[in-house]
Amino acid sequence: VADAVVGSLVDVVGPGHVLTDADVRVGYEQDWTGAFGGPARAVVRPGSTAEVAAVVDACRAASVPIIPQGGNTGLVGGGVPEGPGPPGRGEIVLSTRRLQTIDPVDAAAGQITVGAGVTLLALQERLAPLGFEVGVDLASRSGATLGGMAATNAGGTRVLRHGTMRGRVVGAEAVLGTGATVTHLRGLTKDTTGYDLAGLLVGSEGTLGVITALRLVIDPRPAQRAAALVATTGFDAALATAVGVHRRLPTLEAAEVVDGATVELVMATLDLPPPVAGHPTWYVLLGAAGPGDEAEDLARALDATAGPSAVGVIDAVVAGDGPRVDALWRYRDRATESLAAAGPPRKLDVSVPVSALAAFVAAVPDAVARCAPGAVLHVFGHVLDGNLHCNLLGVPSGGGHRVDDVVLDLAVGLGGSIGGEHGIGRAKRSFLHLVRSPAEIDAFRAVKSALDPAGILNPGVLLPA
Amino acid sequence: VADAVVGSLVDVVGPGHVLTDADVRVGYEQDWTGAFGGPARAVVRPGSTAEVAAVVDACRAASVPIIPQGGNTGLVGGGVPEGPGPPGRGEIVLSTRRLQTIDPVDAAAGQITVGAGVTLLALQERLAPLGFEVGVDLASRSGATLGGMAATNAGGTRVLRHGTMRGRVVGAEAVLGTGATVTHLRGLTKDTTGYDLAGLLVGSEGTLGVITALRLVIDPRPAQRAAALVATTGFDAALATAVGVHRRLPTLEAAEVVDGATVELVMATLDLPPPVAGHPTWYVLLGAAGPGDEAEDLARALDATAGPSAVGVIDAVVAGDGPRVDALWRYRDRATESLAAAGPPRKLDVSVPVSALAAFVAAVPDAVARCAPGAVLHVFGHVLDGNLHCNLLGVPSGGGHRVDDVVLDLAVGLGGSIGGEHGIGRAKRSFLHLVRSPAEIDAFRAVKSALDPAGILNPGVLLPA
Repeated sequence: VADAVVGSLVDVVGPGHVLTDADVRVGYEQDWTGAFGGPARAVVRPGSTAEVAAVVDACRAASVPIIPQGGNTGLVGGGVPEGPGPPGRGEIVLSTRRLQTIDPVDAAAGQITVGAGVTLLALQERLAPLGFEVGVDLASRSGATLGGMAATNAGGTRVLRHGTMRGRVVGAEAVLGTGATVTHLRGLTKDTTGYDLAGLLVGSEGTLGVITALRLVIDPRPAQRAAALVATTGFDAALATAVGVHRRLPTLEAAEVVDGATVELVMATLDLPPPVAGHPTWYVLLGAAGPGDEAEDLARALDATAGPSAVGVIDAVVAGDGPRVDALWRYRDRATESLAAAGPPRKLDVSVPVSALAAFVAAVPDAVARCAPGAVLHVFGHVLDGNLHCNLLGVPSGGGHRVDDVVLDLAVGLGGSIGGEHGIGRAKRSFLHLVRSPAEIDAFRAVKSALDPAGILNPGVLLPA
Repeated sequence: VADAVVGSLVDVVGPGHVLTDADVRVGYEQDWTGAFGGPARAVVRPGSTAEVAAVVDACRAASVPIIPQGGNTGLVGGGVPEGPGPPGRGEIVLSTRRLQTIDPVDAAAGQITVGAGVTLLALQERLAPLGFEVGVDLASRSGATLGGMAATNAGGTRVLRHGTMRGRVVGAEAVLGTGATVTHLRGLTKDTTGYDLAGLLVGSEGTLGVITALRLVIDPRPAQRAAALVATTGFDAALATAVGVHRRLPTLEAAEVVDGATVELVMATLDLPPPVAGHPTWYVLLGAAGPGDEAEDLARALDATAGPSAVGVIDAVVAGDGPRVDALWRYRDRATESLAAAGPPRKLDVSVPVSALAAFVAAVPDAVARCAPGAVLHVFGHVLDGNLHCNLLGVPSGGGHRVDDVVLDLAVGLGGSIGGEHGIGRAKRSFLHLVRSPAEIDAFRAVKSALDPAGILNPGVLLPA
């Protein structure tokens, strides 16, 4: 191997885990939406925390930047190289996928310790027969790793009841940019013995350290899951339905809105039948999980909220058994991949107070039309979290930054944020000033310098240059 | 005023809010247990975030250390000066008590923004008529400020259901050691736009910044609170009772154990009657809060768990109305002040996994007897959090450090921690290495240097010299 850094990585992990051939590297270099990526010098796949530390040391010694990567399911370009650089000067992609340890369940504490490279689906499948579950769930479960989900503070469809990753991570092990390995995995309910490094790593998008293991809170598995898909004539009716059912049903864990155009795109992409008759403009998908007859409870709460006399409700379907629940969820879960197949779309993951959602939804089509004529807007998201995913297809070439700016500014002006659950990555770093003051960004830079003084971890991600 | 720094503080806050007379300063210089404190150069009471920033700037310019102080109810010496220093070179105590703003309740979000100097009791009294409550509760509610509670990641008696301050703080404003003011108070459910500075400040014990305001999650106020006091013949029976009732009663919010010696001390100090007949060795106090008949539900769960045939249960009293509930709580809530009146005690706030509690309780008396003969041990705490407060009266002069070491080491050896909810402060800084590796402590120091480069905030607190 001609490249000295690559040679030192081979010394650490063995030749089989340093990928240099272009056709093998490509799955790590390009994000799956096709919107972000570039050539890496090499992809390294360490198999233990000690190997991660040795990789970080080798890269520090050679001043070669590292891109930490989990399942490469991110949507903001935070886990792939920036783009074409000078030959022989690219970044190293550090894949955590081989950190596959799953410790035994600690049933007394309701916790488990897992390697960062374990996928959400793998952990879900390990826990289910033991009567537990992860709490967090999201559509990219088969690829998304828990380390990546922690690094981006992922949310998903059950935040309403179970919180984001920030609330689920009660301990972490990581190799910091300094090369030091920090480990705090006891997961004690009360333990105030210094700064919360685990919490600092959550949402830091790989810029402070490479997370190698996590201590996670897990939940008892509910006896039954039910779902209802409600078709409405407008966003207000969809929101009112979600709010009303939430008030009546403590076991509600998901409330997802999807606009009619997106449901139609999913139907066309996957050749699915319409879930209800007619042409609703907004759907709301409700999920309940608990010990009782969740389908009956959900139907009752829905009747009380959105009965025949409710304004704007067209129809509703309730499902209580696994396959029928899954069938309803397809209209929501498959939205991202259907949009990717038609795209790549511009993706804007905004957050506003729930009380400002209707104003945002009312204003966003005009805002898009003004600055990106001809673009098609698809909106779906987690309505009771105030978190909407705005996807734009057909944005005129060169018009992307302008439309991002307008949509993000609209959210911020309504008391919201430019980053809900996808993070900032490379996609939104130039907009960070919309939600963070110069004093906050200075503090971020100071923390970054403290834990990654050489700036080798994910340069160009999260913080603007 | 002869002292130039004091003069500049007077310029910032006015002469009425810079306290230099010894008899006025004393309430800020000495902690209330009498175990920690020393003379301050002056006490300054800024009335706004801008004034806090100006105070920090003035002290930075003069290289004078600042001790941030809330209600001065801490138990580890983290909010008072270190002790006698050279004349004219003492620290400035920065009291946040004048930061008294309470914004209107945001009922839609279930949140409120408050000034750091608001006491827990004041916020409880503001929220009660509006149908909300703070979620966190602790015995020092009338003095403890929310800023201080956040800085120490306070827990208290309802963590079981409502979490510690870490889970309640969803935004913060603070003046960092750099002098910069950072503000992030939107409280959005999903907002991943940089490092979690609010989370970093929680539990940092005033060493990174002075918290000036907080965005807090609040909870709907339950219709009824009930309590039960159960007398047992040993710790195992008390623990089993708490675990069994918790499994059966989702509205359980508190499970406190108190040993017999402590209940007897409270009775003697406050001239209270025995709560039950006989001489139990351990009590467990259970609290439930919810929409139903909580006293009935608690009695039923207790019968199923600790009925007449249960091993080790002597007697139980259940109360459902306010005054009788309060009367039962006195045997727990007044323990700290009764011990202070008899002391000052050595206070060790340890945390172990719930599964290791019985082993800890069994081993600690011998450990104490070996290294502090004649000392009297009083134990109480939050049993389902694994958090016990060990109080030692009559420790021989000079034997304190040794007995601290032995008890803390015992907890750590059982998978626990040296700091449950009181923090590290000055009291336990020399034991931090028992639970934090050199790599972690290095990382703490790097974060400290990043946000307080001159080291003027609470030097000597949390981090060993």
